[in-house]
Amino acid sequence: MNHEQPYPSIAAVDPEIVRATQRALDYKTKPRRSLGQLEDLACRYAAIRNQAQPTLPVKTLVVMGADHGVADEGVSAYPREVTAQMLLNFARGGAAINVLARHAGAELIVVDMGVDAELTAPEILHAKQARGTRNFTREPAMSRQEARAAVERGVQLALQLAAAGTTLLGIGEMGIGNTTSASALSAVLLGQAPEEVTGRGTGIDDVTHQRKIDVIRRGIACTQPDATDALDVLAKLGGFEIAGLCGLVLGAAQQRVAVVIDGFIASVAALVAVRLVPAARDYLIAAHRSVEVGHRLVLQELGQRPLLDLELRLGEGTGAALALSLVDAAVHILAEMATFESAGVSDAGA
Amino acid sequence: MNHEQPYPSIAAVDPEIVRATQRALDYKTKPRRSLGQLEDLACRYAAIRNQAQPTLPVKTLVVMGADHGVADEGVSAYPREVTAQMLLNFARGGAAINVLARHAGAELIVVDMGVDAELTAPEILHAKQARGTRNFTREPAMSRQEARAAVERGVQLALQLAAAGTTLLGIGEMGIGNTTSASALSAVLLGQAPEEVTGRGTGIDDVTHQRKIDVIRRGIACTQPDATDALDVLAKLGGFEIAGLCGLVLGAAQQRVAVVIDGFIASVAALVAVRLVPAARDYLIAAHRSVEVGHRLVLQELGQRPLLDLELRLGEGTGAALALSLVDAAVHILAEMATFESAGVSDAGA
Repeated sequence: MNHEQPYPSIAAVDPEIVRATQRALDYKTKPRRSLGQLEDLACRYAAIRNQAQPTLPVKTLVVMGADHGVADEGVSAYPREVTAQMLLNFARGGAAINVLARHAGAELIVVDMGVDAELTAPEILHAKQARGTRNFTREPAMSRQEARAAVERGVQLALQLAAAGTTLLGIGEMGIGNTTSASALSAVLLGQAPEEVTGRGTGIDDVTHQRKIDVIRRGIACTQPDATDALDVLAKLGGFEIAGLCGLVLGAAQQRVAVVIDGFIASVAALVAVRLVPAARDYLIAAHRSVEVGHRLVLQELGQRPLLDLELRLGEGTGAALALSLVDAAVHILAEMATFESAGVSDAGA
Repeated sequence: MNHEQPYPSIAAVDPEIVRATQRALDYKTKPRRSLGQLEDLACRYAAIRNQAQPTLPVKTLVVMGADHGVADEGVSAYPREVTAQMLLNFARGGAAINVLARHAGAELIVVDMGVDAELTAPEILHAKQARGTRNFTREPAMSRQEARAAVERGVQLALQLAAAGTTLLGIGEMGIGNTTSASALSAVLLGQAPEEVTGRGTGIDDVTHQRKIDVIRRGIACTQPDATDALDVLAKLGGFEIAGLCGLVLGAAQQRVAVVIDGFIASVAALVAVRLVPAARDYLIAAHRSVEVGHRLVLQELGQRPLLDLELRLGEGTGAALALSLVDAAVHILAEMATFESAGVSDAGA
């Protein structure tokens, strides 16, 4: 792979489509703007699709998994083997994301981007770049070429999904240690001190939390990422699943597929994507506000207001699955509601 | 109808079921409590059903419509005819609630509790108590007997729905002028000044808003409701649909059916129900925080934290429909996820 290959070109969305869609909603049998953020969602989806009357969403949820060298530093409540075990759980249909993807009517695609195990289950898409990243407290997690290849793998998957009909894509992740990676990435990309963006992940105690902050500080000191070069930051502190999700965002945006980002880690992947190609921002929909402390800052930087606030901190795309359903509902409103005229209902006037 | 007839007897929910359900969730393949409010929802639903392993919800959404004498005071942006027009729109499937109930997989039942028109569409359940209430700035909106009969009609409908299998009930309303009635009820029941609980309804200007506050003040002065007697308050300032929804809550709670309350008006109906039979509170789930200013105070009084905050202000049960889907998702998590043991995933320990 030649890392000089260009990133996907992404068009800005047309604000005229937003206005046209809002006008269409204003003719529906409800007081103007009375469906609040649901109306905004319909307008944003229409603009992303570049259709004032978009067809109903075809929903896919992609969960990417990978292992992290930095997990050796004892930053998680769970042992590293859990990444592989959970991918097998996804393959067998027993995880939270299986339940919620089914509930949302979304196809679930599980991708091994770099798990430290041989995963041969046919339900898992093999896109393994390596058996985990390297420990960034000692050396860069990935080479620049590795990071670029993982991004490109995500781009290609998004293009395939778009070609097969997906119009609304949820993204989630699984990787023991990956909140440490995501916190390190956001510290550098947002210019924040590690303690400002480092939370409790899946549930660690005070001692482990302090160690996690220290690990991030050491990782940044060791690898010296260039904050103005997002690929450099991604390579040095990222994970293969974060790189893959970044590529999914870029490929989806190029194909005018709306991307519902799950929690903290998926949002950091989206932030890397936006730093690589700023127009990608228009294609993002933030699912929820997770309890991870860095998430608020990342969403703020992305200009996103999350749809849900249910104190989720699982990842896997679980928040994205719930939000896919809200976007879907919003587009159904646009497609299926009667107008004042067609229903014979008196309007209040403008 | 004898208004001395007792209200339904309602059992308090068993906190042991909440604990047993949380234990079952703690064995699922996810960090403990990582699904936040979704876990609380599953526990609450289980406790309401009195089953630690509840069956999947059977969802019904009831929208009750009625007209309000106080609409003559010019408190709404819409003419009174819109109540009947919208019920016909519901019957034909073109309103927002039709779209969202279908999307949530809920059966929609439209009830005429007191619309000022002859509604003969077979899709509308006829439970008309009168062609609208009286104007409460001049006389009580209903007699005590009328209010009690409307409550009883709601109770009976809930019992029928429970007998037919409903286990999760969303409640919504339609009635031009009914935010005025709901604001008046909450002012008296919460001991608040009218301006503290009176909002913009479906979208009125400053002059109309001030008139609405004044109308409420005059209504309270004219009818002199006894704040310690919820049926008296309901009769003097309420509407037939609010009384019907109050009855739905009482009947549902008696049958251990969970009730998802929509916005401000449905919440006020639930508040009346809780004042009549305090144990009804355990059976309520607040769907969303509406933009109506009184809603926050009513939810606080009910001890409810809303699931969604999407700036909805339509009513009809639209927020309840979205929330039904979240409750459903939570119960699916409880029913369908694998345990650490069954999936062969390493646990972090307690």
